[in-house]
Amino acid sequence: MSAIPEEFLKKTAQVSEEIVRPFANSKKIYVTGSRPDIRVPMREISQSPTQSDSGLEINPPIYVYDTSGPYSDPAVKINLLAGMPEVRSTWIAERNDTEQLAGPTSEFGADRQHDPALAHLRFEHIRNPLRAKTGANVSQMHYARKGIITPEMEYVAIRENCRLQELKADVRYSRLLRQHPGHSWGASIPEEITPEFVRSEIASGRAIIPANINHPELEPMIIGRNFRVKINTNIGNSAVSSSIEEEVEKMVWSARWGGDTLMDLSTGKNIHETREWILRNAPMPIGTVPIYQALEKVNGKAEDLTWELFRDTLIEQAEQGVDYFTIHAGVLLRYVPLTADRVTGIVSRGGSIMAKWCLSHHQENFLYTHFEDICEIMKAYDVSFSLGDGLRPGCLADANDAAQFGELETLGELTKIAWKHDIQVMIEGPGHVPLQMIKENMDKELEDCFEAPFYTLGPLVTDIAPGYDHITSGIGAANIGWYGTAMLCYVTPKEHLGLPNKQDVRDGIITYKIAAHAADLAKGFPGVQLRDNALSKARFEFRWEDQFNLGLDPDRAREYHDETMPKDAHKVAHFCSMCGPNFCSMKITQDVRDYAAKLGTDEQTALKKGMEEKAIEFKKSGAQIYRNA
Amino acid sequence: MSAIPEEFLKKTAQVSEEIVRPFANSKKIYVTGSRPDIRVPMREISQSPTQSDSGLEINPPIYVYDTSGPYSDPAVKINLLAGMPEVRSTWIAERNDTEQLAGPTSEFGADRQHDPALAHLRFEHIRNPLRAKTGANVSQMHYARKGIITPEMEYVAIRENCRLQELKADVRYSRLLRQHPGHSWGASIPEEITPEFVRSEIASGRAIIPANINHPELEPMIIGRNFRVKINTNIGNSAVSSSIEEEVEKMVWSARWGGDTLMDLSTGKNIHETREWILRNAPMPIGTVPIYQALEKVNGKAEDLTWELFRDTLIEQAEQGVDYFTIHAGVLLRYVPLTADRVTGIVSRGGSIMAKWCLSHHQENFLYTHFEDICEIMKAYDVSFSLGDGLRPGCLADANDAAQFGELETLGELTKIAWKHDIQVMIEGPGHVPLQMIKENMDKELEDCFEAPFYTLGPLVTDIAPGYDHITSGIGAANIGWYGTAMLCYVTPKEHLGLPNKQDVRDGIITYKIAAHAADLAKGFPGVQLRDNALSKARFEFRWEDQFNLGLDPDRAREYHDETMPKDAHKVAHFCSMCGPNFCSMKITQDVRDYAAKLGTDEQTALKKGMEEKAIEFKKSGAQIYRNA
Repeated sequence: MSAIPEEFLKKTAQVSEEIVRPFANSKKIYVTGSRPDIRVPMREISQSPTQSDSGLEINPPIYVYDTSGPYSDPAVKINLLAGMPEVRSTWIAERNDTEQLAGPTSEFGADRQHDPALAHLRFEHIRNPLRAKTGANVSQMHYARKGIITPEMEYVAIRENCRLQELKADVRYSRLLRQHPGHSWGASIPEEITPEFVRSEIASGRAIIPANINHPELEPMIIGRNFRVKINTNIGNSAVSSSIEEEVEKMVWSARWGGDTLMDLSTGKNIHETREWILRNAPMPIGTVPIYQALEKVNGKAEDLTWELFRDTLIEQAEQGVDYFTIHAGVLLRYVPLTADRVTGIVSRGGSIMAKWCLSHHQENFLYTHFEDICEIMKAYDVSFSLGDGLRPGCLADANDAAQFGELETLGELTKIAWKHDIQVMIEGPGHVPLQMIKENMDKELEDCFEAPFYTLGPLVTDIAPGYDHITSGIGAANIGWYGTAMLCYVTPKEHLGLPNKQDVRDGIITYKIAAHAADLAKGFPGVQLRDNALSKARFEFRWEDQFNLGLDPDRAREYHDETMPKDAHKVAHFCSMCGPNFCSMKITQDVRDYAAKLGTDEQTALKKGMEEKAIEFKKSGAQIYRNA
Repeated sequence: MSAIPEEFLKKTAQVSEEIVRPFANSKKIYVTGSRPDIRVPMREISQSPTQSDSGLEINPPIYVYDTSGPYSDPAVKINLLAGMPEVRSTWIAERNDTEQLAGPTSEFGADRQHDPALAHLRFEHIRNPLRAKTGANVSQMHYARKGIITPEMEYVAIRENCRLQELKADVRYSRLLRQHPGHSWGASIPEEITPEFVRSEIASGRAIIPANINHPELEPMIIGRNFRVKINTNIGNSAVSSSIEEEVEKMVWSARWGGDTLMDLSTGKNIHETREWILRNAPMPIGTVPIYQALEKVNGKAEDLTWELFRDTLIEQAEQGVDYFTIHAGVLLRYVPLTADRVTGIVSRGGSIMAKWCLSHHQENFLYTHFEDICEIMKAYDVSFSLGDGLRPGCLADANDAAQFGELETLGELTKIAWKHDIQVMIEGPGHVPLQMIKENMDKELEDCFEAPFYTLGPLVTDIAPGYDHITSGIGAANIGWYGTAMLCYVTPKEHLGLPNKQDVRDGIITYKIAAHAADLAKGFPGVQLRDNALSKARFEFRWEDQFNLGLDPDRAREYHDETMPKDAHKVAHFCSMCGPNFCSMKITQDVRDYAAKLGTDEQTALKKGMEEKAIEFKKSGAQIYRNA
C-alpha cells in the first residue's frame, strides 16, 4: 500500500504522453561495449529514399547522440514510482570499494526519512546509501589516475563517437561525411574517442564524468573541451510556485529535448523529497547548489549559516545521489568590496549569500576555509565540484572586472586542492559579457584553472532584450563553446522575468543545442557535420519529412510547415510555400544540375576554360562587354 | 471618388491599432539639424526615479534610434491612402538636377497605370516620376565625391549619434555612459559621427545611403561598417498566399520593431501595385530583386528573359522609388558547373534563374554583359546596387567554395565599374557558414570588393534546426556584424518551412536587433552600451516597468513577467518570481552594498589590504586554512 495520495500517484507513475511520444521515424538503439551491460543509447533516424530519373537512391539512417534516457525506449515500462533501471550498480559493486550504509548519515536526511508527516511525498523505494570504504576514493579521476578504464569511461567513449567509425566504413555515408576543418583554439580532439583517451583526459583534469555512486540510474556522459559540447538545464520550484510532479516532468522534458545535465535549483518546500524523485528517475547527472537548501534550513538568514549545517547538507545530498555540487568557495571577503561600484553588484544567489555571511561575521568564507573538509565528502561519493562563480557579472558593465577575475584565480587555487584529492572539478563562468570580451574569459579560465572544464551561463552579449535572453545568451554560448567551454548552462526566454514553463524550457534547450552544435562544428569534432549534410540533402531533394525528422525539433518544424501548407501532398511537392512552383530555386538548380551532368567531363573543362579565356578577354578589352550595352 | 472598393479602403486607410500603439513611457522626438526641415526622429524613453534611503534619484530619459517612422508620431494623421509625409522633396528639388517626367517611361509601368481593370488596386495619388536631367548624376556618392554634404548626410549623422554628445555633457548620464573598449577588426569608428565623416565614407564607397529620388517619404539611413549595424527585413507575397494590405501592414510592423530597410520580394499577382502602396507609406529604404518581376512577365520561363524586358523592369521600379536593387550580375557561366557537386546546388532564386538562363542560351549572364547599361539607369534615380550573391551556399557543406568565392571576386570587379559611375554599392553575402569559416567571408569581401559594405543573410551556423533558423542565423549574424558586416538580412523562425506571419517577423527582427546591437557593442560604437547600462541599473533596482520599457520588446517582457506574477504590486516588489523574497540575490547585494558604503574608504582599503595579506599568508603556509578543517 502506497502512502502517496491517489491523485499524486496518478500524476507521477507515468509521465504525460507528449513527453515520451517517440519522434517520427526514430528508433532507440543501443551500442554494446566490451561487456554486455555497457549498452549505450543512440537514436536512429531513418530516411526515405531519393526518387530520381535514374531510380531510387537509398538514404541511410542517421545516428544521433541521445539524452532522452529510458523514456524513449518502448521496451522499458516507465514507472516513476519505482524509478528508472539501474545502469551502473554492477560496475560500482564490482569495484569493491564501497559499503552500504544502514541509512542516511546526515541528520537532516535521517529526520526526513523517518518523518511520518512526509510519507505522502516520499519516494517509495529509497535505497540505503553507498559510501566509499574508509580510506577509499571512489572518484572517476582517482581510477583514471591509477590507469583504470572504468565501464563509465568506455560508455562515454562509445557515446561520443556516435558510430562514426562504423559509418566511415560504409560507402553509403561517404558523401555525407564531408566536413570542414575546425579551428579548435588549442584543444586536442582526436579522430576517434577511445576509452583510453577518456581516461587520460579525466586523469589530467581536462574532463569529468559526474557520476555519484548513489545515482546508478545515470547514463554516463563526459564534460571536457576535447569532447562534444554539453548543455545543462535548470529546474527548481521556489517559494512562489511549482510542485514535485511538475519538476519531475520538467526533468523528463529536458531529457527529451537534449539536456545533458540538469541542475535542481529548488528553493521552496520539500526540496529533499523533490530531489529524491528527480534522482531516481533521472538518466542525466544532477547538480545542485547545496547552499540554497542550507539557507532554507536557517529560514533564509544567511548570517545563521554554519559549516556544520552545510556539511550535513552536503552529506544529505551526496547520499541521495547528487552528481555535482556548485560550491561558491571563491567568494572571498576581500573581493566583496570590489563589487560595490558595480552596476548590478552580486547577482549569483550563492555568491550573494556567501558575501552576506562573510560581511556579517567579518570572517573568511567558510566554504573556502573548509575546502578540504568538503573534498573529503566529495571523494567518498564521487561528487564533482562545480566551482561557483559567485561574483560573475550581472550586466555588460560589470564584465571581466577585478571581482570576477579575482574569484577565478581563487577557483584555480581550489582546483589544485581538489585535484590533490583526485576530485573531479569544473569551473563556472559568466554571465553577461559583450562579444569582444568573451575570449578573454576562456583564455583566463584555461590558464588560471589549469584547463579544468569551463561551464558557463550563456554569456549574454547584451542586456537590452528581456524576453529573448535565450537568444542573447545563445550567441555568447556558441562563441565561448567554440573557444573551449565544455558545458553551456541554458537560459530560457523567461530569464530575468519569471519561471520558465515547458515551452520556455524547450526553447531554451533547442537554442543551446544549436549553440553547442555550432561550437562542435567550429572546433571540428569528428563527424558532427553528418547530420547537417543529411538534413541539407533532404532539404534539397524536397524530402520534407526527412528534413523535419533530422532536425533538433521535428515537431516544431512540421507544425510551422503545416501552417502555410497543411496538405500532405505538399510534403512531397517539389516546391514550397515560400516561392511557389515557378520561383523555386531548388527546382531550378536541379534542372541546372541535370544539364551539367549531361555535359561530359571534357565539355565541362572546355566550357570552364573557354569561359575563363573569354573573361580574360573581357577584362583586357575592358569596353567589349559594354559595347553591347 | 475613389475607385478602391470600400472593403479595401477600410482595411488600408489605417493600420491596426496594435501596430501603431506607442510603447509605454516612450515619446517620439525630433532632433533638428542645420536647417529646420532636417528633423531626425528618435524615441525618448522616460524612467522612474530610484527610491533609496537617501531619497529619490532621478533617472534621466534614454534616447534610442527610431526606425518606426511617422507611425509612432501622434501628431501625424496616418492615412495609407494618401501616403506618408515627404521628408526629402525640398532637398531633391533644391539640387536642381532632376526633371519631372510626364508619366512612367517604362512600358510596363505605363500599361499598369492606364489599365482600368487595376483601378481598384491602385494607389490613388501616384506622382509623376523624377529623373536626373540629361547628363546629371543624382547619387549620394556623386555629391559626396564632389565634396557636397547633402541634407541626407547630415540627417544620418544626427541619427547615428543619437544625442550622444549632448548626453556626455549631462552629469546625469556620466555613470550610464561607461562602455568597454571595442575590438573593431580594422574598422575606423570616430568618437562622433559628423556630416563630413558621412560624406567621406560615402565618397570612398565604404558606406551608402540608399535613397531613390522617387522615394521622398524616406527617412535617410546609412549602411557602412563604421556606422551602427543595420538590419533588413523581407516581405513579399507569393503565388501561394498573401495580399496587398497584408504586405503594407507587414512593412509598418517591421518599422515598429526596428527594421532599418525592407526588401519587397513579392512574386505573385499585382507586384507593381503592391510596391507602390509600400513605397508611398515606407519610411525606410525599399529594396527589390527586379529579376523576380521580370520572370513573372515571362510566365516563369527563365530562358525567355531578355535584356530589354529586364531594362524596362528596372526603369519601372526605379520610377516608383525603389532604393536598392539586388542584381545577380556575378553569376557567370563559368561558375555554374562549379555548383554541380554541391549538396544544395544554387539556392538563391535570382542566382538559379540566371544560371538557368546562361545554360539555356550558352551565353554570358546578360546582367554582367549589360552592367554599364544598368549603371546608367541607377544613377538617373540614385538606386543603389545590392550585388547579389547568386551562388551563396545553401548549407554548411557548400560554404566558402570555389563558386561562392569566384562570384565574390566578380562582384568586386563590378563594384569598381559601378564606382566609376559614382553609384552606391553594397555586396550580398551568405548564407550557411559554420562559425569558424565566417571571418574568411568578411576578410575576403573587404579585400575583393574594396571595402564596399557587406550585407549578409545570417549566416546560419548549422543546418539542423528548422523552426529555429532565426537563432542559428542570429549567431552567425552577430559574429559577422562584429567582423565588419554593415547590414544583416533577417531570418525568421519559418525560414525553409513557410511564409512568416506577424509574430515570426517580430521574432526575426528582435533576434537581428540583438545581433546588430551585440556587434555594435563588440566594435565599440560610441554610446551604444548606454541602453544596456540603463536597463541593468533598472533591473538591479527592481524598477520593473523601466526594465521592460528599455528593452527591445517591452510588450513581450511585460507579458512574460505577468505570466508568473500578474499583480501590479509585484512590479515594485524587491524580489521576483524566480527566487522568492529570501533568495533574491539582488536584494542581498543591496544589503552588501549598503554595508560596503558604510565602511569609510580607509576601512575599505584596510580590509582589502588586510585580506590580501592574509591570503598571501594562507598561500605561503599552505596547510593553515586546512588545519581548521
